[in-house]
Amino acid sequence: MSSHWFVGVDIGGTTIKLAIIDTYGEIITKWEIPTNTEDEGKRIPIELSKAIFTKMEEINEPKEKLRGIGVGAPGFIDMDTGLIYRAVNIGWTNFPLKDLIEVETGLPVVVDNDANLAALGEMWRGAGEGAKNLLAVTLGTGVGGGLIANGQILHGVNGMAGEIGHITSIAKGGAPCNCGKTGCLETIASATGIARIATEKVIGGITSSELKEVFNREGKLSAKDVFDAAKNQDSLALEVIDEISFHLGLAIANLANALNPEKIVLGGGVSKAGEFLTTSIQKHFEAYALPRVVEGANIAIATLGNDAGVIGAVWLIKQKINK
Amino acid sequence: MSSHWFVGVDIGGTTIKLAIIDTYGEIITKWEIPTNTEDEGKRIPIELSKAIFTKMEEINEPKEKLRGIGVGAPGFIDMDTGLIYRAVNIGWTNFPLKDLIEVETGLPVVVDNDANLAALGEMWRGAGEGAKNLLAVTLGTGVGGGLIANGQILHGVNGMAGEIGHITSIAKGGAPCNCGKTGCLETIASATGIARIATEKVIGGITSSELKEVFNREGKLSAKDVFDAAKNQDSLALEVIDEISFHLGLAIANLANALNPEKIVLGGGVSKAGEFLTTSIQKHFEAYALPRVVEGANIAIATLGNDAGVIGAVWLIKQKINK
Repeated sequence: MSSHWFVGVDIGGTTIKLAIIDTYGEIITKWEIPTNTEDEGKRIPIELSKAIFTKMEEINEPKEKLRGIGVGAPGFIDMDTGLIYRAVNIGWTNFPLKDLIEVETGLPVVVDNDANLAALGEMWRGAGEGAKNLLAVTLGTGVGGGLIANGQILHGVNGMAGEIGHITSIAKGGAPCNCGKTGCLETIASATGIARIATEKVIGGITSSELKEVFNREGKLSAKDVFDAAKNQDSLALEVIDEISFHLGLAIANLANALNPEKIVLGGGVSKAGEFLTTSIQKHFEAYALPRVVEGANIAIATLGNDAGVIGAVWLIKQKINK
Repeated sequence: MSSHWFVGVDIGGTTIKLAIIDTYGEIITKWEIPTNTEDEGKRIPIELSKAIFTKMEEINEPKEKLRGIGVGAPGFIDMDTGLIYRAVNIGWTNFPLKDLIEVETGLPVVVDNDANLAALGEMWRGAGEGAKNLLAVTLGTGVGGGLIANGQILHGVNGMAGEIGHITSIAKGGAPCNCGKTGCLETIASATGIARIATEKVIGGITSSELKEVFNREGKLSAKDVFDAAKNQDSLALEVIDEISFHLGLAIANLANALNPEKIVLGGGVSKAGEFLTTSIQKHFEAYALPRVVEGANIAIATLGNDAGVIGAVWLIKQKINK
């Protein structure tokens, strides 16, 4: 047998992404199955295993070619045992995910947080370009993060490391956050936060703006509306983006002064704004990070998209087996 | 030979601290020699070696009992090679400290930043109580830090990790910092910062305060004056401490949301204020960190004092040899 393969799995609330991936991180084949949340998600390990071995038959490859499975899961995870304390949108409580998949497949399994695995994926095969000190920031409906130092994911003492969406950007009088606090970075730099800030400014009495026209027509604004208007040099949209970039640049600079990352990778839906966003964040980042920290760091947009999780999962199981 | 010993060295601008330490981190004997900065510090490796072997003769122990030397040094260090790029207050430029001490002593040597080693010392034998995820904050003339995650010091891509004194606390209109930026945590929470804030408030027109009396008598205020007056319930002093604790608690909470440490250890001269300070910081920390992060974290005062560096240095060389 000339080469080994691994399986990357990324379990979400509605679908499970799967991929067979070679030892260099190249995807051989990838597919999705629905997440079966019936019976508190109990059948997921069996369905996963079936899906993997059926796929190997389909592509006429021996299952012995598979060396291990990396799994990204949502919720609170005990990284040592692969136990999911609680994953609300799937229904798991104290669910021994790692053990169950190992029993079903006979393969070694490693489980980690989905945001962390996306960061590892970008480190290995994406915008991180192998940087062993990397800060991944996911700007989506919320703001998430993954921290890699010395080539390892940071988990912290109880699996909470990387919660950079809940860094406080506005200490007093900030908008309420889902976490119960106020003024979190997530209330500003998420897609939801960007839409909120733009809407407040439009309602606040601006007289002329492309964004106001969109708002009057649609009755609401999205983050995409803001970036579209900004590309047309709409001054209100530019003001909103500068405000968001200021808070992102400051939070990233403060983290970077502590962590000294080589790569800062921005992912998630909002990051599709691309260079427009990175240029603006870079400006504020440089104002607040130490010069030597700025020198060492490069801000880039994530390149793997939805594949980051399964690729990172494979990196992790590969590392574990090689140890 | 029933047991091995190690040497811990902590090189400062005026004195070098040395200690012979056993494999459990107990100090057998400790002493100091002056830092010889003549000739751009060239003679330091030789003088160090002589001091170590002379001490072993003095205490009638064979030098073969020593297994390795851990060295804390100031300045910018290449951790892999133990080369000091630059240490201004000693005179070193591109100085191969590790290699030179290894040649002189015949023992394996590891070199790291002095603030990092103090954090490791507290982790191993001090307030950290073995916590493998630890944030050390040194409140002295400046504000320094050491970050430990998964039991390893974080260095970052170019040795700058842990520069938490330069986290920006006041984004606009803050006081100037030695680093060239403004509003850094160091401008607020260092001994110098505390004295500055108190002085500004006294000059700002406060009418009645113990601190004002001290200022009128001495012509200046120190951080110690502020803590002394606060213990007498002086309202201005309490206001200053609340302001400082707010910024420290917020900065620590933001870092803790990212790093999820088990222990947050406060060291340096200002930390001598003790429980008074930790209680105040804890209050603000709890307001800004996620509940599960607060649950996992314990704020404590450093217990090793000046021994933290040599003990941490020995932990590091012991780890390296055991690998």
